[in-house]
Amino acid sequence: DVRQGKGNVIVNHAMISKRHYNAALKIIRKVASAGYTVSPLVRVFEEGEGFEGRRVPKGKVMIATLCSITLDAILHHAGIPISPMFGGMVQVLERKPLRFTDLISYSGSTLDPLEIFSAKGLSSVLKAVETGNGYVLANFREIPMDAMVKAKEELKKAEKFSINGVLRIGEPNTPVLGVPVRINHVGIAVLGGTNMLTALSEVGIPVEIKAIEGFMDIKEMVDINELSLKS
Amino acid sequence: DVRQGKGNVIVNHAMISKRHYNAALKIIRKVASAGYTVSPLVRVFEEGEGFEGRRVPKGKVMIATLCSITLDAILHHAGIPISPMFGGMVQVLERKPLRFTDLISYSGSTLDPLEIFSAKGLSSVLKAVETGNGYVLANFREIPMDAMVKAKEELKKAEKFSINGVLRIGEPNTPVLGVPVRINHVGIAVLGGTNMLTALSEVGIPVEIKAIEGFMDIKEMVDINELSLKS
Repeated sequence: DVRQGKGNVIVNHAMISKRHYNAALKIIRKVASAGYTVSPLVRVFEEGEGFEGRRVPKGKVMIATLCSITLDAILHHAGIPISPMFGGMVQVLERKPLRFTDLISYSGSTLDPLEIFSAKGLSSVLKAVETGNGYVLANFREIPMDAMVKAKEELKKAEKFSINGVLRIGEPNTPVLGVPVRINHVGIAVLGGTNMLTALSEVGIPVEIKAIEGFMDIKEMVDINELSLKS
Repeated sequence: DVRQGKGNVIVNHAMISKRHYNAALKIIRKVASAGYTVSPLVRVFEEGEGFEGRRVPKGKVMIATLCSITLDAILHHAGIPISPMFGGMVQVLERKPLRFTDLISYSGSTLDPLEIFSAKGLSSVLKAVETGNGYVLANFREIPMDAMVKAKEELKKAEKFSINGVLRIGEPNTPVLGVPVRINHVGIAVLGGTNMLTALSEVGIPVEIKAIEGFMDIKEMVDINELSLKS
């Protein structure tokens, strides 16, 4: 039950080389403090440590970050049906989200849309962080319009536990960042939890990203700013 | 009118460095003669040559190959409505197409599905060519079941002009390579015209691929086997 700051959340994984750890930490902090992600909460797994049947190989470090689908789980627990519609790229102009420039529907793809945009090298998360102009990964979700007020309350509660990520909540039957919604629905644009990880590949740090990769107790995660650099 | 071996066809573009030309030619020939593409017809543009408002930059060569959507055009001209449904990856086992392992729907994506698979590095076209086992790019299309006989005739005619690419034509209301069809439709699995180009990036030749990039008179294209290596 995330409303009380406990319970399981859904995480993305990034595997990087140990020697890139300090550089990666600085970039992830930067992206987190600029707010282009779901949460500053992370968990670092050192080489040899195991997680859900996988073991971190020698010379590697695995960083788990909160996946935006955690927000779906929060709303589902509150009895609000939320449908993932699209993964996409949002253009950021002068620090404001402007519009979705590309979309891939979840229902029409066997690959994770955000992993696709990340792999195609279409994002410029770090540029968005540094200059205020760039392209970031985001999802488009829909809830029934009757659930709008309740959903806003629940998302507000989650913020207290460092779970954010909502870019824009629309009005009933009104497009959000240029994307139309189904009748009697409200669109919600949510930042991708992988923005922090995609930023790593943007600077040339080899990173293997897996979206929606596992569960984790939120109490096992720490704020990225509390982690110290390795010597 | 491709039925008489003339008229415009739809092409994909690949831009490569001039020094990779000979290596690229050999690979494209290999893929074409193994039959994992739509047509052995290509056209090469040298540096400085212009095509549809673009000019080939210095040190580069552009290779145009037939796009599988040309088959759609042929059927449309014959009055057969054909719908592109998915782009995907087909597993090839012992030289036989086994099944689609990944799909992205055309209606749900603003990016070309085959460009995505190519960029994600999921294909192994060259392995399929050399060992008979691998993953190749393919499309899934649908035609109304009443048009099945006519469509087979038209596709047969196109073969005379070196336009092939059909991997499998299904039966009415029957899945093709594991993909179900809409009621009263027949599924057609078609090889991607970009298989030849994706094979280049598989061996590490830097290549910039653009699918469905322009029209070209089929008479301006030549069989890849008639081109000679550059000295």
